[in-house]
Amino acid sequence: MAQKPSIPQGTRDFGPKEVQKRKYILGKLEQAFRLSGFMPLETPSMENLTTLTGKYGDEGDQLLFKILNSGDYFKKLIEYNQRGLGHEEMDPTFLPSSSGKVADLDAKRSLPFLAEKGLRYDLTVPFARYVVMNRNQISFPFKRYQMQAVWRADRPQKGRYREFWQCDADVVGSDSLLYEAELIHIYDDAFSSLGLPVIIKLNNRKFLSALAKACGAANLLTPITIAIDKLDKIGLEMVLKELAEKGLNSEQINRIERFLQLPKTMDGAMAGLESICGEEEDFKTGKAELEAVLKFLGPNLNNTLELDLCLARGLSYYTGAIFEVQAATGSLKSSIGGGGRYDNLTGIFGLPGVSGVGISFGLDRIYDVLEELKLFPPSLSASPSRVLACHFDEAGRSYVLNACYQLRKAGIACEVYPDITRKIGKQLDYANALGIPFALIAGENEVNSSSFSLKNLVTGVQSSFKLEELIHHLLEN
Amino acid sequence: MAQKPSIPQGTRDFGPKEVQKRKYILGKLEQAFRLSGFMPLETPSMENLTTLTGKYGDEGDQLLFKILNSGDYFKKLIEYNQRGLGHEEMDPTFLPSSSGKVADLDAKRSLPFLAEKGLRYDLTVPFARYVVMNRNQISFPFKRYQMQAVWRADRPQKGRYREFWQCDADVVGSDSLLYEAELIHIYDDAFSSLGLPVIIKLNNRKFLSALAKACGAANLLTPITIAIDKLDKIGLEMVLKELAEKGLNSEQINRIERFLQLPKTMDGAMAGLESICGEEEDFKTGKAELEAVLKFLGPNLNNTLELDLCLARGLSYYTGAIFEVQAATGSLKSSIGGGGRYDNLTGIFGLPGVSGVGISFGLDRIYDVLEELKLFPPSLSASPSRVLACHFDEAGRSYVLNACYQLRKAGIACEVYPDITRKIGKQLDYANALGIPFALIAGENEVNSSSFSLKNLVTGVQSSFKLEELIHHLLEN
Repeated sequence: MAQKPSIPQGTRDFGPKEVQKRKYILGKLEQAFRLSGFMPLETPSMENLTTLTGKYGDEGDQLLFKILNSGDYFKKLIEYNQRGLGHEEMDPTFLPSSSGKVADLDAKRSLPFLAEKGLRYDLTVPFARYVVMNRNQISFPFKRYQMQAVWRADRPQKGRYREFWQCDADVVGSDSLLYEAELIHIYDDAFSSLGLPVIIKLNNRKFLSALAKACGAANLLTPITIAIDKLDKIGLEMVLKELAEKGLNSEQINRIERFLQLPKTMDGAMAGLESICGEEEDFKTGKAELEAVLKFLGPNLNNTLELDLCLARGLSYYTGAIFEVQAATGSLKSSIGGGGRYDNLTGIFGLPGVSGVGISFGLDRIYDVLEELKLFPPSLSASPSRVLACHFDEAGRSYVLNACYQLRKAGIACEVYPDITRKIGKQLDYANALGIPFALIAGENEVNSSSFSLKNLVTGVQSSFKLEELIHHLLEN
Repeated sequence: MAQKPSIPQGTRDFGPKEVQKRKYILGKLEQAFRLSGFMPLETPSMENLTTLTGKYGDEGDQLLFKILNSGDYFKKLIEYNQRGLGHEEMDPTFLPSSSGKVADLDAKRSLPFLAEKGLRYDLTVPFARYVVMNRNQISFPFKRYQMQAVWRADRPQKGRYREFWQCDADVVGSDSLLYEAELIHIYDDAFSSLGLPVIIKLNNRKFLSALAKACGAANLLTPITIAIDKLDKIGLEMVLKELAEKGLNSEQINRIERFLQLPKTMDGAMAGLESICGEEEDFKTGKAELEAVLKFLGPNLNNTLELDLCLARGLSYYTGAIFEVQAATGSLKSSIGGGGRYDNLTGIFGLPGVSGVGISFGLDRIYDVLEELKLFPPSLSASPSRVLACHFDEAGRSYVLNACYQLRKAGIACEVYPDITRKIGKQLDYANALGIPFALIAGENEVNSSSFSLKNLVTGVQSSFKLEELIHHLLEN
């Protein structure tokens, strides 16, 4: 019986037009990555659950998509359960628990025999896993970019998907601040080439740490960071209230309030920060790092670089510089990119002390911003064809078919309308529906005079050409 | 505790060099697809199991990767089982069986609550699903290409993976034989642009059907097709033996033996075939189709086109033309592409009568063939960088950093070695390890004379340039 087909919640089909637009963005990002010598890496969609679990916090573990092992585990389970607890004949591959008490098993512990593999949750953990597995073959510093899908069992909602792409560039195996500058340049290049003006926000985790220490609250760095990270969302009053709830006294809160109100200009912010926590070692290191990055950057940026001392980038593993990018115009102001310096990414897999720095681009959000601001090139139509060859009869079709072979040899994408019984108007409708800009039309006159009529479907202008002229005209237009 | 990381059986990491080579192939295929106006489509990695199951035969169903639903199904199952069979309080969302008899449940029936989604098994079924879901938005004929990963829980073995890519091009919504010719041209173009000479084999399912009818064994078409399909693998004797076992008499087998021994030349094969089953309607239709395809093809092919009457392409849904491609040289002779005409792809999803024709490229096998024949361009090194900028001290590094900004503006991929304490020899080792062809070297002399030494790391030749000359030289070489 015929089914009414659908796709899983939170997933998307990308039709021709959407793929062209996504490829356009990916192409520009890739170009920027490659221009700075980043090398491509692709890792499997599936990872062992032992690689993934425990790396993204409890919430992340919940959101992992797990792949059912092959085999009749359900049946085995029922059989085992019916034979009673702790049965000695039970298949040792079937239950991982040595106690054998089925009643003890919770869903988590049952997973090893139900599922041993999960879908990639981000590109960072697989990258760390790859680096550790291939440490002896890799020449460090290792600069890699990776643009692949990731999957999260999130509740589907507007703008949030269960399958989406991440586009990351990271360097590991060097603590040189040159790379902070290089990554900022990649942001600058990539968004310039997309025609999208952005604000690149820069901060250093060490400034937050200096603030906490200057407050005499080094032990409260985490709650302070969490509260400050919410400033944009909940506002100053609520942040201060949250700090009080976390146990900070009014003197400490006053100092943090002064911090949160520092000017956004580079010099103003640094001067103010110095007055708040200038004595702290972390401040001095952070300042030296910032100055080095600015020196490496040079005066060549196209976009605005902003020191945003309140930028915290969540609770992630960053230890030095942090970056975030947002569009400078339009209504969509959420982050379209972010990253930072981390010190121990590969430590979880047994390779400690590898410093790294990386950035990420949010493909879906960049897509939405470019769409809103109408920044996609108008030539990105559904069909790659530049010419639809139309005809009135079989002789005309053969005639334009041969012309198309010649156009393709010249690198011009084109196609022949297949059906000789369709009127020209219908053939042109097909070209218009697919966004094909030119129609090549051959009737008896054209065939007899070895010429072609080319109609520009945007302007309506129609001209006659010999084959060579036609190729020349299409290559020029 | 640190884990020793690994990746799941049958999956692969693709390091920089491998990704470059894979992208090289994918780029050439995509170029060929686009030149003929095929439009890109991308479907989700996950499909509903209702979309996937029953489409690939029993074996295919077994090989689907299923994604575990969220929630504690294991725990629920144990609880339910302990409360006894058919318990009225059981959660109706938990067991799909209306009888409620746990003992009746087999692994298959348990799946709806353990798993509702599976990973894409091929690109054809998702394409059919997409066409049916979007039938009202699509302009037919719909020409799409799709290059994405698919997953199969096959036993891993040499050359067979659990995650691999398929590259398909299909046209649906037209029965014009123009498209058979267009797809053969795509094979021809794509492999020509890869520098790989191939044999494109062509057949028509209707010839096999005519043969069966001429034998008076129309009802045995399937076993005859299965046996003939094995000719390459098991040889003539074994095929004839299998036909006898399937119940064909010696006269029928004689006729099939004559068929199997027909010459491979186009004219010879057709003349022979006519003498075997020339009276059959299917022969006449097949011959007319073949002649039309050959006429549309024109004389423009670069590769050998061969009529292979024994080509059957398994038991798939093909009804007209069938294609298969193999390398014309080298030791790897298995199929690197295949396809054909089908009549009812979308029928399973409730849209009958949509004819289509498609081809597929086997990325992994093409990769292996190009590797064996050393057909990858030597410029495909691990790093996209063309220049590594080397230095002796901080002043030199600043100097080359600025030069690199200028090189990148000119579109030349380059990078600066980050560490100023490393000797030049070690910096050059890094360039060599990554396959970077040029080293830009700046010492005191260069800085003072505003010049650069460029060393060709392949030839060893070193020359001095001003910045503008340097850019010019790199763009030319």
